[in-house]
Amino acid sequence: MTEPSPIRIENDAFGPVEIPADRYWGAQTQRALGVFAIGEERLPVCLVRAFGLQKLAAVRANRRLGVLDPYLADPIEAASREVWEGGFDGHFPLVVWQTGSGTQTNMNANEVIANRANERLGQALGTRCPVHPNDHVNRSQSSNDSFPTVMHLCTALELRDRLMPALHLLRDTLAAKAVAFDDVVKIGRTHLMDAVPMTVGQAFRAFAAQIESGIERVEAVAPRLHRLAQGGTAVGSGLNAPKGFDDAFCAEIAALSGLPVVPNPSKFEGMGAHDALVEVSGALNVLAVSAIKIANDIRLLGSGPRCGLGELVIPDDGLSSSIMPGKRNATVAEALVQAAFQVVGNHATVSAAGASGTFELNVAKPVLIYNLLQSIRVLADGAHVFAMRLVRDLDVDRDRLADNVANALLLATALNPILGYDRVAAITRTAMSEGVTPRAAAIALGFATAEEYDRLVDPAAMASSDAGARQDWDG
Amino acid sequence: MTEPSPIRIENDAFGPVEIPADRYWGAQTQRALGVFAIGEERLPVCLVRAFGLQKLAAVRANRRLGVLDPYLADPIEAASREVWEGGFDGHFPLVVWQTGSGTQTNMNANEVIANRANERLGQALGTRCPVHPNDHVNRSQSSNDSFPTVMHLCTALELRDRLMPALHLLRDTLAAKAVAFDDVVKIGRTHLMDAVPMTVGQAFRAFAAQIESGIERVEAVAPRLHRLAQGGTAVGSGLNAPKGFDDAFCAEIAALSGLPVVPNPSKFEGMGAHDALVEVSGALNVLAVSAIKIANDIRLLGSGPRCGLGELVIPDDGLSSSIMPGKRNATVAEALVQAAFQVVGNHATVSAAGASGTFELNVAKPVLIYNLLQSIRVLADGAHVFAMRLVRDLDVDRDRLADNVANALLLATALNPILGYDRVAAITRTAMSEGVTPRAAAIALGFATAEEYDRLVDPAAMASSDAGARQDWDG
Amino acid sequence: MTEPSPIRIENDAFGPVEIPADRYWGAQTQRALGVFAIGEERLPVCLVRAFGLQKLAAVRANRRLGVLDPYLADPIEAASREVWEGGFDGHFPLVVWQTGSGTQTNMNANEVIANRANERLGQALGTRCPVHPNDHVNRSQSSNDSFPTVMHLCTALELRDRLMPALHLLRDTLAAKAVAFDDVVKIGRTHLMDAVPMTVGQAFRAFAAQIESGIERVEAVAPRLHRLAQGGTAVGSGLNAPKGFDDAFCAEIAALSGLPVVPNPSKFEGMGAHDALVEVSGALNVLAVSAIKIANDIRLLGSGPRCGLGELVIPDDGLSSSIMPGKRNATVAEALVQAAFQVVGNHATVSAAGASGTFELNVAKPVLIYNLLQSIRVLADGAHVFAMRLVRDLDVDRDRLADNVANALLLATALNPILGYDRVAAITRTAMSEGVTPRAAAIALGFATAEEYDRLVDPAAMASSDAGARQDWDG
Amino acid sequence: MTEPSPIRIENDAFGPVEIPADRYWGAQTQRALGVFAIGEERLPVCLVRAFGLQKLAAVRANRRLGVLDPYLADPIEAASREVWEGGFDGHFPLVVWQTGSGTQTNMNANEVIANRANERLGQALGTRCPVHPNDHVNRSQSSNDSFPTVMHLCTALELRDRLMPALHLLRDTLAAKAVAFDDVVKIGRTHLMDAVPMTVGQAFRAFAAQIESGIERVEAVAPRLHRLAQGGTAVGSGLNAPKGFDDAFCAEIAALSGLPVVPNPSKFEGMGAHDALVEVSGALNVLAVSAIKIANDIRLLGSGPRCGLGELVIPDDGLSSSIMPGKRNATVAEALVQAAFQVVGNHATVSAAGASGTFELNVAKPVLIYNLLQSIRVLADGAHVFAMRLVRDLDVDRDRLADNVANALLLATALNPILGYDRVAAITRTAMSEGVTPRAAAIALGFATAEEYDRLVDPAAMASSDAGARQDWDG
Repeated sequence: MTEPSPIRIENDAFGPVEIPADRYWGAQTQRALGVFAIGEERLPVCLVRAFGLQKLAAVRANRRLGVLDPYLADPIEAASREVWEGGFDGHFPLVVWQTGSGTQTNMNANEVIANRANERLGQALGTRCPVHPNDHVNRSQSSNDSFPTVMHLCTALELRDRLMPALHLLRDTLAAKAVAFDDVVKIGRTHLMDAVPMTVGQAFRAFAAQIESGIERVEAVAPRLHRLAQGGTAVGSGLNAPKGFDDAFCAEIAALSGLPVVPNPSKFEGMGAHDALVEVSGALNVLAVSAIKIANDIRLLGSGPRCGLGELVIPDDGLSSSIMPGKRNATVAEALVQAAFQVVGNHATVSAAGASGTFELNVAKPVLIYNLLQSIRVLADGAHVFAMRLVRDLDVDRDRLADNVANALLLATALNPILGYDRVAAITRTAMSEGVTPRAAAIALGFATAEEYDRLVDPAAMASSDAGARQDWDG
Repeated sequence: MTEPSPIRIENDAFGPVEIPADRYWGAQTQRALGVFAIGEERLPVCLVRAFGLQKLAAVRANRRLGVLDPYLADPIEAASREVWEGGFDGHFPLVVWQTGSGTQTNMNANEVIANRANERLGQALGTRCPVHPNDHVNRSQSSNDSFPTVMHLCTALELRDRLMPALHLLRDTLAAKAVAFDDVVKIGRTHLMDAVPMTVGQAFRAFAAQIESGIERVEAVAPRLHRLAQGGTAVGSGLNAPKGFDDAFCAEIAALSGLPVVPNPSKFEGMGAHDALVEVSGALNVLAVSAIKIANDIRLLGSGPRCGLGELVIPDDGLSSSIMPGKRNATVAEALVQAAFQVVGNHATVSAAGASGTFELNVAKPVLIYNLLQSIRVLADGAHVFAMRLVRDLDVDRDRLADNVANALLLATALNPILGYDRVAAITRTAMSEGVTPRAAAIALGFATAEEYDRLVDPAAMASSDAGARQDWDG
Repeated sequence: MTEPSPIRIENDAFGPVEIPADRYWGAQTQRALGVFAIGEERLPVCLVRAFGLQKLAAVRANRRLGVLDPYLADPIEAASREVWEGGFDGHFPLVVWQTGSGTQTNMNANEVIANRANERLGQALGTRCPVHPNDHVNRSQSSNDSFPTVMHLCTALELRDRLMPALHLLRDTLAAKAVAFDDVVKIGRTHLMDAVPMTVGQAFRAFAAQIESGIERVEAVAPRLHRLAQGGTAVGSGLNAPKGFDDAFCAEIAALSGLPVVPNPSKFEGMGAHDALVEVSGALNVLAVSAIKIANDIRLLGSGPRCGLGELVIPDDGLSSSIMPGKRNATVAEALVQAAFQVVGNHATVSAAGASGTFELNVAKPVLIYNLLQSIRVLADGAHVFAMRLVRDLDVDRDRLADNVANALLLATALNPILGYDRVAAITRTAMSEGVTPRAAAIALGFATAEEYDRLVDPAAMASSDAGARQDWDG
Repeated sequence: MTEPSPIRIENDAFGPVEIPADRYWGAQTQRALGVFAIGEERLPVCLVRAFGLQKLAAVRANRRLGVLDPYLADPIEAASREVWEGGFDGHFPLVVWQTGSGTQTNMNANEVIANRANERLGQALGTRCPVHPNDHVNRSQSSNDSFPTVMHLCTALELRDRLMPALHLLRDTLAAKAVAFDDVVKIGRTHLMDAVPMTVGQAFRAFAAQIESGIERVEAVAPRLHRLAQGGTAVGSGLNAPKGFDDAFCAEIAALSGLPVVPNPSKFEGMGAHDALVEVSGALNVLAVSAIKIANDIRLLGSGPRCGLGELVIPDDGLSSSIMPGKRNATVAEALVQAAFQVVGNHATVSAAGASGTFELNVAKPVLIYNLLQSIRVLADGAHVFAMRLVRDLDVDRDRLADNVANALLLATALNPILGYDRVAAITRTAMSEGVTPRAAAIALGFATAEEYDRLVDPAAMASSDAGARQDWDG
């Protein structure tokens, strides 16, 4: 509707292309924009920045191995660092739905960095000279090893810097509630039906144990996640890369990012398959499964306020129903469950993508990494918000809990070792049909005196049998 | 880093909240922004606009039933129409990961429309008077019936306006290639192994048939998709909605959008479950499965150019490898396959979300609709690009095709009715072990003369046996 | 450990093979037994019998079209009928994990029928003469069209004869409970939290509506399920089948089974892809989703007996806990939910299998049909048992239901149209914080007199607003 | 049709039941048979036997802790050992589709062992005396801790004794082919399109690396899989179990089976959730993904024999087409791919089941373990058969491989470092359009002399760049 934006002309091996004058991408990126008019899902910013890191390590390895002149290496290094640090986030316009090797995004990185490096050398954008996107920025590399390397890098960084802190926070918040509620006796439930007593603390300790094991699972993927395909170039053989490039590259990455990466002993495996990322997705899938269990239990225990279980009190979040004024819901728990459903479905996509490789290249890389990064992000943020907005301020309704324990039908289970299963069954059945307490039924049936019953059936003692249930991180 | 944006204060039942002065949303939206700091996935624009349509139909039904004063109804109607037409896309900032009823997005719509309506009446933003977001914009409605109604509406519109045209285009493009290649004989392949002759046209006709059946499947969901929950209000009973609201609402939607919607006879079903949307997702899942088959067949038949099957020639898209200059790939086919993997995984998310409803409300609505709309979008765009950028300009390599047919081993299958299975097996086994043609083997074994063989084994005739293979849309 | 079973020798094109003397299968089946030593999952009996039906229709079509001598056709027809009627169930030993075309199972059928037909003609087993398994039993056919035809046939028969009756039973049983509980007022729940009143009948009507829609969905797949690939032979072209074989075959199937089958206009589509079966699986997936919702709602509403929601009373099934005597659980509901989880996972397998076809043949047929038939079976049986063992004898706890309604917090929602959202919010908030009824809060705040409140807030009237909620099958 | 089988009467807390006289199960099992008439899938034999192991360890722990009289413990121990060793496989008739805790199968074990123990003490079946199924066989236990313990035990045993040997065999077989084909140069392929040279050995080394990593993944789950819930009894608190029972039990299991099991520090976690088993399923899912990649690559490389890629020669398995005599297919590869599809779908079921736990009990245990054990079984058997029937005897077609390398278009990629990307692109484009070799094009364009070209472009040297690609298990 306004006057057209200024454009410049860039060339590639196919000829000239018009590009918005203020964008640093080049001809291959612009062509790809024209071809892939599919959806709106761009590759995430954390992947774009990890490309900056990858190009930075590559140029430093090239320089160290003597295959790139410092005159060219200097500005490439500076430009790569700018991409890594987020200075060019707005210059990566491509969507996920592109070629399956991510080639266009690798070329996007090559082009942005080449343009920025040439600019630093006093050239206009689009000159491709003296720094050439393929010959210099992409030196010793192919999309086929660079893109999977970046997939591993951004996954490892997101796990370390985003997911792990959130999981630690959630685990610790749950564990703190376990300590706080350790002496609150409640009725346990199996098959949703009233069972025998336990403590609220034990329930939260189990939640915390689920997250703790989830942390272990994420840690367990590290050996395979930290193997990088870089150095394989076009098919895995390392054609056109100098000997030792893979080691040099990994050393640079480790120094720059702190990630303990190593070369994949089979570059072919790291380019043709993405089993390591399917494995990561599997660990996230277990976390999603855990999150669904925990959030749903808390939602149910907090149901009511008057016609539900009502054992937990969900903190008020200031949001309400559009029609039922004053209604409070466990909104954040629902958000977490939805995030977990997303992770479960993303895992199916990641697995399908992972299984689809053929010969020397898996060509479902962009969709795979898009789903994996989304899973990490929504799980991490979801866990964080769930911990801070809901778990931290959870309370218990002690009256309701005590009433439930007092009313419970199966307390007589504690008499099994004395009376045997069949007589206890008679007690319970009588209590149920007569509408009385099991205590009254036991006495009426002549199976126990009041004194005996009260001595043997002590809910608090029944709950505390599990002396071993203390995890390390309780301290 | 710059000076803070101006803000205004809005109130809701919980008190005052600071809101960016130029945004039309209100206090509940702003509170939700603070709570749900999860991911970056906003509910899609097509859903936001469908909310405009829903509010527009609701205010018109309210007016028609005499439960809303024209003084209030007029500006609500005008504002709703603006939302429908895209005028307030930038005023819906909430992410998918919110409460499971989508309440905050319904309140976002109520607030934007109330503010805009009050503005039209000369009031400042945030007055909530005379138009109140809950009492007037949300009149006769709840999030619990409005959000699922909008889910059905935007799904139906996206299917009609985005997916169906793309599927028709793809089907027609494939069918046109079928006609173009109807006389090109090729070797058929089963288990990836050479089998007996057929035509290239037959292969493309099968692709077209898959898409045609996919269109039928999308059409088949209509009866259930067009049933709307609107009128159920809080739990399905219609509390606070006037009698006949559901019928009046559906009549307005039909008039405004052309969709043949009807009230769901069980509002409870339409709010507590989303089976109809799981069903839609299932239809998309079949389309994804079809797309994977078609795209992979074309990729494989176009493999080469010199060491692959090489029977099809993939059009050049101007994109190449970052390291192998001049390499051409079927990039668009890979994009479609990736989109299809996304749909398969989204279907798992949609199914999990659909199964998670409890009692009178399914509370996985935002994640369900987010995935469903994404599936529609990437399938539609993917099919469009695949048709226009790849299928339309596909060509065949007639020399390669003819060579393959001439070399084929199992042509002697045509002799089964004459010689019987066991003797034909001997021909084939001999041809294989001796490295000769089956013709030579048949003659050498004395099973046929050259004349007999040539009369009985005619690849073109073998391919054309399937006289029935003509679909209606052939023209 | 005992003396070896007697064996006989059979031959095929590869030479002689030892076969248990009392089994009617032949050399190819026996070889396959040796090769595919994987798992224990045999192809289900209903598929074996459908192969009898398929071979029966084929021999009749061959005879009608004059391509098979009655001397051979007669015993083949008789033997095929025996297989169809279950007389040879024990002669199909192969597992699912065989070649992806199901060729070995087609050969198994050819061999059993040839042996049985030759036996009828006075020959010993294994003579392959005068009836030859490939030349006569398999005449005009290939595994590549026969196996998918059988997949469609046994699916259609299982849907019609097993699933549909079970779904009708479940729908009718749920609908009968809806009628029985139509006047029982209960508190509705959204987000698991207490909402506004409704009736128990409305809840069951929604369940019945889900199953009714599920029935519609299964019916909707028929047009594509009833298209058969038979007549395509090796690759879809119909090589070696007489003209009109597909029509003749379908006419025979229709006459024999009552299924309204028609030839697939693209045999290539019906052999290279299995979209129609993926579609069927999608319909089952929705039923699974519905079953999970329904079973879980009933489990939760029946939770207790003393510390749960306790609104429904689950019938006693005579099973109990191994440690908690007298404990009753909704075991049958759990069985149904587990069956539904199986269906959801099977759907993923079916979709992956469906997407994996290449060129003229999908080679994941056995795993696809195994999963699909299992889904039908466990859904059908699960629905039947759930209807008869649980739903039919469900009762309500009227005291508990009435108490809940009396205690409910959000009844004042009915005052919205009179007082407006913000004042009703104040009533609810006051009731909550003071621990009083909303009635008391409304009066204390001066928003309503007792008379006004009682007139305007009538739970039974609030529940019955949904005048439209009557489905056709209510009678 | 024949005379009725003899029956006996057994009693439980609900009264008498008729049981086949020769079966050792009791009243609860028989009642369950009547209730759960769903499908035909029995719980697998390996689970039944693991129940024998669990009961054996439990009775020994009870004896050691002094809570069971040796007079009762002796026959219980003997009977449990018989179940463990397979002596009562035919006495566990229940299907998967039962109560979600597996209670009926635990009671089945209790009843079989009690009957057998009483028989050893000279009593008739059905006396429940002196050994009582609940009071003595189930002493210190509940279904709720026993069944999950058995789930972990049979999973760990199947992984150790079935899957791991098969994976080692497959890895070693692939690695042996890698060594055998290490000097065979082939054209690499990316995007299915011809790329640059590599060796056949490198491809197989990548396959072997995938399986090697799969082995690592299975090993990585051990810490969590070896944590047992036993000792938690009814809800996790350990009610009615003596102090130290969990440690004593694990010590017995370790001694009996060699599994390094330990008590789960949170019994609640081990009963309410099954994250550890979802994790195992995730590891199997990665193996399935790997298997699909490997099997499909081999199928494609072996496609032909005359119109496919034809680089590998698939061994003949003696099975053929029913219509195309002499046709050979990679049947075993298809079987493995189908098994892998099953694992992928089972993983979805396992995840859904794992997420469905509520409060103190996950009630989808039978379906979860059924799917997990099936996944292990079909992967293990599939890998074994694939290794022994296909990979071991694979051969290469050296002529075809050499022709392909000679024809390849992108060999000039090796000139990139000398000529730069843009000039090499011109070479390739010229070679393609002129239909000549890149060598001829390079010379014609004046970019290289014949001598230069031949020195710089050496396929064998290009393939061997990847000096690092040697895995540890190469020997």
